[in-house]
Amino acid sequence: MTQNNSSEALKIIPLGGLHEIGKNTCVFEYGDEIILLDAGLAFPTDGMHGVNIVLPDMTYLRENRHKIKGMIVTHGHEDHIGGIPFHLKQFDIPVIYGPRLAMALLEGKLEEAGVADRTEIRTVRPRDIVRIGSYFFVEFIRNTHSIADSFTVAIHTPVGIVIHTGDFKFDHTPVDGEFFDFQKLAEYGEKGVHCLISDSTNSEVPGFTPSERAVFPNLDRIFSQAQGRLLVTTFASSVHRINMILELAKKHNRVVSVIGRSMLNVIAHARNLGYIKCEDDLLQPLHMTHKLPDSSVLILTTGSQGEPMSAMTRIANGEHRQVKARQGDTIVFSANPIPGNTIAVVNTIDKLMMQGAKVVYGKDQGIHVSGHGCQEDQKLMIGLTRPRFFLPVHGEHRMLVKHSQTAQSTGIPAENMVIIDNGDVIELGKDSIRKAGKVPAGIELVDTSRSGMVNDKVLKERQQLAGDGIVTIAATIDGEGHLFSKPEVHLRGVVSAIERPVLQSKAEEAIAAVLRDRWKDFTRE
Amino acid sequence: MTQNNSSEALKIIPLGGLHEIGKNTCVFEYGDEIILLDAGLAFPTDGMHGVNIVLPDMTYLRENRHKIKGMIVTHGHEDHIGGIPFHLKQFDIPVIYGPRLAMALLEGKLEEAGVADRTEIRTVRPRDIVRIGSYFFVEFIRNTHSIADSFTVAIHTPVGIVIHTGDFKFDHTPVDGEFFDFQKLAEYGEKGVHCLISDSTNSEVPGFTPSERAVFPNLDRIFSQAQGRLLVTTFASSVHRINMILELAKKHNRVVSVIGRSMLNVIAHARNLGYIKCEDDLLQPLHMTHKLPDSSVLILTTGSQGEPMSAMTRIANGEHRQVKARQGDTIVFSANPIPGNTIAVVNTIDKLMMQGAKVVYGKDQGIHVSGHGCQEDQKLMIGLTRPRFFLPVHGEHRMLVKHSQTAQSTGIPAENMVIIDNGDVIELGKDSIRKAGKVPAGIELVDTSRSGMVNDKVLKERQQLAGDGIVTIAATIDGEGHLFSKPEVHLRGVVSAIERPVLQSKAEEAIAAVLRDRWKDFTRE
Ligand SMILES: [Zn+2]
Ligand SMILES: [Zn+2]
Ligand SMILES: [Zn+2]
Ligand SMILES: [Zn+2]
Repeated sequence: MTQNNSSEALKIIPLGGLHEIGKNTCVFEYGDEIILLDAGLAFPTDGMHGVNIVLPDMTYLRENRHKIKGMIVTHGHEDHIGGIPFHLKQFDIPVIYGPRLAMALLEGKLEEAGVADRTEIRTVRPRDIVRIGSYFFVEFIRNTHSIADSFTVAIHTPVGIVIHTGDFKFDHTPVDGEFFDFQKLAEYGEKGVHCLISDSTNSEVPGFTPSERAVFPNLDRIFSQAQGRLLVTTFASSVHRINMILELAKKHNRVVSVIGRSMLNVIAHARNLGYIKCEDDLLQPLHMTHKLPDSSVLILTTGSQGEPMSAMTRIANGEHRQVKARQGDTIVFSANPIPGNTIAVVNTIDKLMMQGAKVVYGKDQGIHVSGHGCQEDQKLMIGLTRPRFFLPVHGEHRMLVKHSQTAQSTGIPAENMVIIDNGDVIELGKDSIRKAGKVPAGIELVDTSRSGMVNDKVLKERQQLAGDGIVTIAATIDGEGHLFSKPEVHLRGVVSAIERPVLQSKAEEAIAAVLRDRWKDFTRE
Repeated sequence: MTQNNSSEALKIIPLGGLHEIGKNTCVFEYGDEIILLDAGLAFPTDGMHGVNIVLPDMTYLRENRHKIKGMIVTHGHEDHIGGIPFHLKQFDIPVIYGPRLAMALLEGKLEEAGVADRTEIRTVRPRDIVRIGSYFFVEFIRNTHSIADSFTVAIHTPVGIVIHTGDFKFDHTPVDGEFFDFQKLAEYGEKGVHCLISDSTNSEVPGFTPSERAVFPNLDRIFSQAQGRLLVTTFASSVHRINMILELAKKHNRVVSVIGRSMLNVIAHARNLGYIKCEDDLLQPLHMTHKLPDSSVLILTTGSQGEPMSAMTRIANGEHRQVKARQGDTIVFSANPIPGNTIAVVNTIDKLMMQGAKVVYGKDQGIHVSGHGCQEDQKLMIGLTRPRFFLPVHGEHRMLVKHSQTAQSTGIPAENMVIIDNGDVIELGKDSIRKAGKVPAGIELVDTSRSGMVNDKVLKERQQLAGDGIVTIAATIDGEGHLFSKPEVHLRGVVSAIERPVLQSKAEEAIAAVLRDRWKDFTRE
């Protein structure tokens, strides 16, 4: 039945995740059927005032909602699952297949958004194969990444096998003992991979990414040197890192208090599913630690990126109600700042140091490693799968270009790969890969505090208001265009070389003059 | 005459440049006399809407203007001279001594601001000694830095000799052949330096800073590989870099067109004074290059930091009227992004690449070196001067802390140094250094487009407007508090889950209700 479409091409349409790190969302379309791979969110950049979430433009999926047969999820990071609750408000997704941890996190999100009934969630295990619609089979292949329970997927399509790496590194000594399934990957390489779609995050970085375990001895050293309290911050989703921190806390006889909503959420789900292993009494609520000596306490917290509302930022600003930084504290930043967060992070570090804490941070401490493979890892991925066609994704433009150069260095011809942007329609045929058209691929900005969309017009208005401020004038005018009384001039956010009272009277004069000279123009219509 | 004050302490009061990189401004006060060292500006950070220049709070100098005897300037960077025209609007500075290039740049600024008559500018040469007021003698010592004609200064004060490094690196092969005056520095070390005030910019970086000349072979290689046009961007003030780019342009038979106001300004002054050497016909206006083959053209431009209005950013956005990036262009970023500018820079690079240009950027290219010494250079500075007391400046808090640790590793006792913040009053006595009080040291924000100050209130208003937008309501009310007609509700930058027409009618109802219920409250006063 699927065979009579064999002359057709598979359409691959990334709606997000290209020319950026974030909101990874990819459409696979064949005949009249669509499957989705991941649907993430991104965070706002400068000038996106009052926006806290950025989503891809979903016009194409709204218009083709009847084609959607299901979704596959590679892992539980926000840039891969964070968009799903928003999309489900606009269209149904019959079924979502994904790893247990990601699905547990997703279920919480869907319930919170009140859209849990718009889809059916099914968890998968390594080497599970699922059929979605009439054209697609998907096999889930265990990979290694900074979050536990992460997958590379092999998508069997009518044009051939497409491997999407998801986010990956090659970690030969994974903290959870779950090894990358090289055997399955190599088996596909032997059978023949038609196209490899691969993670470009670290394509500008030479060499290999070290194992997550490499941070263990360095954290151990820092923990053993700490005299007073330990405060440790990392990404809430870095399950392996959190596991090691808990193990080291136990080793150094410290109880752990977790603060920050997202970290509590991830730890609860990960413990529940066995991805984080620790005894109940290792974890203690904050108030229980007040009676303990400082040297028996470790506070694990969000805020490694200097996020304004996070626990660590509030501690640094002296605004956290229960925790104040103080002399004797050792504060560990077990994360590198993402570009764009650098200033926020170093400001946080400075403020903590000024309160007398010892702050351990920076690359030379060896307390953070990336969850994404570097150039040599990317070559190894290509070597294992030996694909005919190649599509670099999950990266900014120059990362995609660099990744394509790396791929060419391994022998894939330049004409067998394309550098794509969000919204590009890639047609993958039996013997060709090419860009063929474009679907809408802008961004949608969400102001969650008002549960509304910040459209371009609103954003432009906000930027103008921020740059210039606003002058409002209230004037009562009679039928002939004469002012009844002095107009009220009100300034907000306005700067002027003229002093305010002078400005006020100048504005009044100007209004009176305009009314006098141009009243007829106003009344004409 | 100066000797009867010998029991008094010298006051050192930094008004800017501490806990930040920028707006370096330092007060030296003894008896009833003040001299200033540098007066720079800083650039706005996130949330400073509509602000383009940040200045230190000058309250202390306004109140003590009668004490000001003069100013010394170390070099011509904006973070050392950019504040002077603004300050001269508030108080006179009898005399400003500084290097020729910095003074030439400063004179232009003073004329533009219309304050050239508020001071007297005097240029100095290496080893010049000037007397300012009754207590201070200052010797200018040639140093090496990213801008030409830069000085370290030895300030002879009644409590002893204070050496202020200014901004420095140790460049043994300076592009302009002007060597660091080690001999003079060592002579002071031999005589006895009471206090060293030293540049902390790179105190977190181990090792030595390479010579500016290290970029030459790498630029040479890139220039020789370029087939089409070359576009090169660097800091406008990097005189040595510009000199090398011009030399290489000549070598590779390219004429140079300079675009960007600040770069044209620096090059004009530096050529005039002999710090940039090139034949007249090497430099050509842009329109002259249109007739030449691409391989004979080099465009030297501002915008290495992705500044929104700069030439390179406008080229990347396709908004530059005369220059469009195109296939065959080689575009060279000979500068590293300053933290906070990273996103703007990589976005610019991506956009240029998407237009088909080859973009050369990044640390591994070896086309940028810092103008500030690293840890080993900082040790060498201490070794040459062997000061008794030590004051780290020009850096964020953790850089100052790190620099003080480096100083301790060279044998200066911890009690002979202080970590300071803007506004701290440091008393340097014959046998002690200590913090003694605080003067106002906030920031003043300038919106130059309106030549006005953005005070805290205006800034807060702008932040609120940006985050929330504004609702204005115009209603005509009779003497009894009844609405004459439907009120006009106007939204700007407002997001709401409710649709606009519904919101409008809800607002009208609410206004009518408030007027009905609370009219008496409004009229009572
Ligand atoms: Zn990702
Ligand atoms: Zn991920
Ligand atoms: Zn400086
Ligand atoms: Zn400088």
